[in-house]
Amino acid sequence: MNDAIQPVLLAGQWQSSLGTTGQFRAADPTTGLAIGPVFPVSGAADVEAALAAASAVAAELAATPAERIAEFLEAYADALDADADTLVALAAAETALAAPTRLRGNELPRASGQLRQAAQAVRSYSWTNPTIDTAAGLRAHLAPLGKPVLVFGPNNFPFAFNAIAGSDFASAIAARNPVIAKAHPLHPATSQRMAQLAHTALLQAGLPAASVQLLYQFDNAIGLKLAGDARLGAIGFTGSRGGGLALKAAADAAGIPFYAELSSVNPVFLLPGALAERGDTLAQEFFASCTLGSGQFCTNPGVVVVPRSAAGDAFVASATAHFANASPMVLFSQRGVDHVAAGVATLCRAGAEVLAVGVIGQGEGSRYAPTLLSVDAAEFIAQPQALQTEAFGPVSLLVRVEDADEMVFVAKAFEGNLTGTLYRASDGSDDAAWQAIAPVLRARVGRLINSKMPTGVAVSAAQNHGGPFPSTGHPGFTAVGMPASIHRFAALHSYDAVPDALLPVELRDANPGGVQRIVDGLWTTAYIGSAA
Amino acid sequence: MNDAIQPVLLAGQWQSSLGTTGQFRAADPTTGLAIGPVFPVSGAADVEAALAAASAVAAELAATPAERIAEFLEAYADALDADADTLVALAAAETALAAPTRLRGNELPRASGQLRQAAQAVRSYSWTNPTIDTAAGLRAHLAPLGKPVLVFGPNNFPFAFNAIAGSDFASAIAARNPVIAKAHPLHPATSQRMAQLAHTALLQAGLPAASVQLLYQFDNAIGLKLAGDARLGAIGFTGSRGGGLALKAAADAAGIPFYAELSSVNPVFLLPGALAERGDTLAQEFFASCTLGSGQFCTNPGVVVVPRSAAGDAFVASATAHFANASPMVLFSQRGVDHVAAGVATLCRAGAEVLAVGVIGQGEGSRYAPTLLSVDAAEFIAQPQALQTEAFGPVSLLVRVEDADEMVFVAKAFEGNLTGTLYRASDGSDDAAWQAIAPVLRARVGRLINSKMPTGVAVSAAQNHGGPFPSTGHPGFTAVGMPASIHRFAALHSYDAVPDALLPVELRDANPGGVQRIVDGLWTTAYIGSAA
Repeated sequence: MNDAIQPVLLAGQWQSSLGTTGQFRAADPTTGLAIGPVFPVSGAADVEAALAAASAVAAELAATPAERIAEFLEAYADALDADADTLVALAAAETALAAPTRLRGNELPRASGQLRQAAQAVRSYSWTNPTIDTAAGLRAHLAPLGKPVLVFGPNNFPFAFNAIAGSDFASAIAARNPVIAKAHPLHPATSQRMAQLAHTALLQAGLPAASVQLLYQFDNAIGLKLAGDARLGAIGFTGSRGGGLALKAAADAAGIPFYAELSSVNPVFLLPGALAERGDTLAQEFFASCTLGSGQFCTNPGVVVVPRSAAGDAFVASATAHFANASPMVLFSQRGVDHVAAGVATLCRAGAEVLAVGVIGQGEGSRYAPTLLSVDAAEFIAQPQALQTEAFGPVSLLVRVEDADEMVFVAKAFEGNLTGTLYRASDGSDDAAWQAIAPVLRARVGRLINSKMPTGVAVSAAQNHGGPFPSTGHPGFTAVGMPASIHRFAALHSYDAVPDALLPVELRDANPGGVQRIVDGLWTTAYIGSAA
Repeated sequence: MNDAIQPVLLAGQWQSSLGTTGQFRAADPTTGLAIGPVFPVSGAADVEAALAAASAVAAELAATPAERIAEFLEAYADALDADADTLVALAAAETALAAPTRLRGNELPRASGQLRQAAQAVRSYSWTNPTIDTAAGLRAHLAPLGKPVLVFGPNNFPFAFNAIAGSDFASAIAARNPVIAKAHPLHPATSQRMAQLAHTALLQAGLPAASVQLLYQFDNAIGLKLAGDARLGAIGFTGSRGGGLALKAAADAAGIPFYAELSSVNPVFLLPGALAERGDTLAQEFFASCTLGSGQFCTNPGVVVVPRSAAGDAFVASATAHFANASPMVLFSQRGVDHVAAGVATLCRAGAEVLAVGVIGQGEGSRYAPTLLSVDAAEFIAQPQALQTEAFGPVSLLVRVEDADEMVFVAKAFEGNLTGTLYRASDGSDDAAWQAIAPVLRARVGRLINSKMPTGVAVSAAQNHGGPFPSTGHPGFTAVGMPASIHRFAALHSYDAVPDALLPVELRDANPGGVQRIVDGLWTTAYIGSAA
């Protein structure tokens, strides 16, 4: 155990905090006991130094050739993979997520793969949408903000959404903006280790040393002041609605785009035919999805709409048995347990009935027993806000409807969500109901899913890990999927009558990289005129 | 003269206001005298009715086939062109803009052409960015918001930026969202006439009658309440910074994307070689651009950076003579004159010196004498905020620098602007200076212009009529240029494992329209599999 306070990655080097307002350690969620070294809670001096350093290198990073950016992203990805033993051990200790399956088998490859996809987007310029109007003499593309991006990482993905390695990080760097990473304080040692690898890769690639910085924690007041600092180009935030909206308000006032991924209950509609066809399988799928990662997923199926029918009742009975027989699950922290309990209490106060609570009293640490609740459609429609309270854990609320027609009214009661799912019968007998409900749900979610649980978010160009407010801050952007997630950290730049030699390389006539561009309305990789 | 209060276009029909908080008439800017009929200032009942009606048709409009939307846009464009005599007469009376050149020759064709470009984007689905990942089973595109868009039109373009006909209108309708248009109260009869044509075209195309509504005016408090109503999908605003930021704050709090085009001083840098080569021509170009439309352009060259050199002094002398010999110019209103005067006073208080004021005291009505100011670079850098005050009229501030090096420091002092211009010598002798200044300016503007005044904004796919805050509310979007301007009013929709028949048409395998799509990373118009 190291009693010294750990250094921050600040202004291009690992150094002692310039002034702390406190200190903290991680905890083992399975026991609640403190583990690992002591980390600083950064004071205003760290934040100011980080902002100043990032601002000072923003122009240099924006002017860096794409190839060097791609090299950094790939070298960092390789370093993460090579360091898997250490990283997985650190993350497993700090999060209690399953080391072999979740952390090593799934999340670390996801994080490194995401960095490589970002590198590919950088090399191909696919995120820049180069658009050329030869008659008007105008050429446009998406380009760096020219300012630092502040990233707040969440508690639930120590690798793939880490502020120092996840999609926001990869996207902001791909767009050639410096990143100030604010790690989640529940996994500081994991974040520190990743930042060490990032820093080394950065120096090897020859990028400005202050392009990547890491702070572990700061107080809310300092965070709010930082979020409203006009030197920032954008903010990426993944976390709770309350914290996110407070930071968004500060950013909005300063005109800083704030990309948030906030709470979402991810409604799932079980259409009558699907239930009749495979209700018991659906109950298994539902329980598995709801308890995956102890239910700590942004796309957890938090509300499931089930008809009052024989098949619906059978599904409920089966799901109830699954929940009742489950053991308590380890959450990331006692605070997380308290939040889930508060969410369940809110749901119950609003009329939800508890159908099942898993076996209680087993094990120490931060645990919560899987809990299944139920409420009538009429009550849900009458109190849509309270009954959409997110309980970030192995908890779900069933909404019982008379029939598919009532599902439309329930669908209309949902606020903005990341996902919405409709389970259909394979014989097409649910398709009329689908066509009635889907347009209503479609307008309220980022990803519309057919006959599949919402957990599992592929890193794909056609992904949308986003959705209407309040699930995110803007309905047009995704937090996952290259190249679209890079668009969040880009500015539209147009060039008017600028000579070829003074244009960015991907807008020049010759198009040496064979970039896909829109030239006079058509996508092409061709050069313009006699430029070859 | 009609003494009856004019009807509003509300809930699908022309009807009397449901309750006014006042009434108003337009004025002839050349005399200041009231003209035309009496228009209502809409109270809360009109606003509520408009929101309810637009919300009620949003889903139907979102589901309308693209062809019908395109037909409406084209029929409306045709109707505007056919009605040119009446429209130009109305707009000329209300704005005093030159009828043959500006209104008939330029702005009306721009407005109708913009609607036709929007129709083309609708037919080709070019605004939707269809993206297909066959391996992941994911398909995504940009899609309607499913909620109404509120558009605030500015005073300075009665046709091409009118809330009922301009780029925001065309873009929002192209994305299949209902529009609630808030006309500018300085040209109500023009707006009413356009809305009559829009309404007729809408009914002929068979779109929901409440898809297009028009209110002429409402009080600030009602506007702020409306801007924060979560039933809105987005807001397009073109106007003053003060009003825009107040509305933005209301929209931000409700999570409503707010696309603003606010003030901008559009810095112009005259590099030494260009000045030496063609200083007198530049003075003419500058004066013409600064006084075009009486200087009431968003892209007016409000700050011009000029070296202290023989060529620079000659430019200043020539420009001064142009301004000193000019007659007072008619602005849109006395309020506009007061605002320009206040802006000039702010500039003078901050240290600007008046070089020239046009011939004063000629003519009645709302006039302002072209005014040229000057300030030292050191003072500009010391008081960048006050010295970037926009004076929305025939006014410009020269910033005198020692040399091209000092231009870099001046460039760093600019806040976000729509445009930035560098005038270069044709022999390449300014190119080193360009390369030093351009990156600094680039990060601060939406459109970087070479050797051309910023007025004149082509409707082009490669245009950016946008820029960093505070010139707009988001650096990634343009208010002009199809299809990019449509992106503002779109939501990203992803489909996960959804069967072909239940997908939107442009995401289906067969691709019957031959739409350009990104399939597995490559742009193509091909169908997928054996779908043809």
